[in-house]
Amino acid sequence: MSTHKRGPWTITAQRQAYDNRWIRVSEYDVIRPDGAPGLYGVMEPKHLAVGVVPIFANGDTLLVGQYRFAIDEYSWECPEGGGAPDGDPLDAAKRELAEETGYTASHWLEINRFAVSNSVTSERGLGYLAWELSEGEPDREGSEADMVVKRLPFHQAHLMAMSGEIADAFSILMLGKADYLARTGALPERLASAMLMR
Amino acid sequence: MSTHKRGPWTITAQRQAYDNRWIRVSEYDVIRPDGAPGLYGVMEPKHLAVGVVPIFANGDTLLVGQYRFAIDEYSWECPEGGGAPDGDPLDAAKRELAEETGYTASHWLEINRFAVSNSVTSERGLGYLAWELSEGEPDREGSEADMVVKRLPFHQAHLMAMSGEIADAFSILMLGKADYLARTGALPERLASAMLMR
Repeated sequence: MSTHKRGPWTITAQRQAYDNRWIRVSEYDVIRPDGAPGLYGVMEPKHLAVGVVPIFANGDTLLVGQYRFAIDEYSWECPEGGGAPDGDPLDAAKRELAEETGYTASHWLEINRFAVSNSVTSERGLGYLAWELSEGEPDREGSEADMVVKRLPFHQAHLMAMSGEIADAFSILMLGKADYLARTGALPERLASAMLMR
Repeated sequence: MSTHKRGPWTITAQRQAYDNRWIRVSEYDVIRPDGAPGLYGVMEPKHLAVGVVPIFANGDTLLVGQYRFAIDEYSWECPEGGGAPDGDPLDAAKRELAEETGYTASHWLEINRFAVSNSVTSERGLGYLAWELSEGEPDREGSEADMVVKRLPFHQAHLMAMSGEIADAFSILMLGKADYLARTGALPERLASAMLMR
């Protein structure tokens, strides 16, 4: 492979250092911004992270609880999952909400678009607000067999995110942004009022 | 190694699949919560992620701008870095602020404690608010040779985080939480007033 640039970095060689069904680690020989040679390992997920804050007419939302293997802890979160990197992230978010909770929604709004941890991974996340919900049956993956769903007021979920009781970064980002949009007049008035309990 | 449990998951074998100076990937043979066999690769950083929102007496904060290799994009962020996993994260945050901006602070408050991306990594982050700042000289790493520092009102930095202009998840979490604490009376009144431009 020929040398090429990434901003002030130069890549002189590249190889796949690890690969499974969900993640890849690419290792790069680089010339750093200060001109010195270096090595950079980037964790490259094979899926786009998508998540949803569903809102009921009365202002309730849904959290899912499951044991998270990677951190060895139980975690309460907004419904989240992975979409095909070249697929429509909104379709992936709709599928994750339906699979994990059974619910579908008539209205969807993208509220977050971020880099998960930009010093070490190319992973990106997209968060949505969803409302006008219709009930259905969950259809969970085998790795989610222990998942439970909890319905509670949005403002309580937001407080859990601010207090640290919800420790999942993606969920905190979504709940924080949803609260901001509701407070600043960026959402339909009836939806915002229900979320903020005004 | 003997079989052991992580919540509803059982680990039957474990190996190191990738390793460099900054990250490791551990690969586990598992029995999933539904009883089926599976494979789990976990990206395990060798450092704790620490970050800082510094606040000047007039309500200004500092952002640093640099090209981020892993996402192939320029990024404006709060000062962030890595601490030794068994060291004091507050010491690491103080060191990162001083190295990247030159500033030291008399007051420090932990404001965030979160799991970065709990389906794929054990990485955790700790964010701080810092005030009563004293100027000094930056001392940057070679990989940060292109870094620039920008001073701007905190409320403008918060708006950049809410608008998506700041796309780094860690920075959005810190700026969002700092704004929440200032709005809800959890910070010294003079500090909060300066941050919110009341």
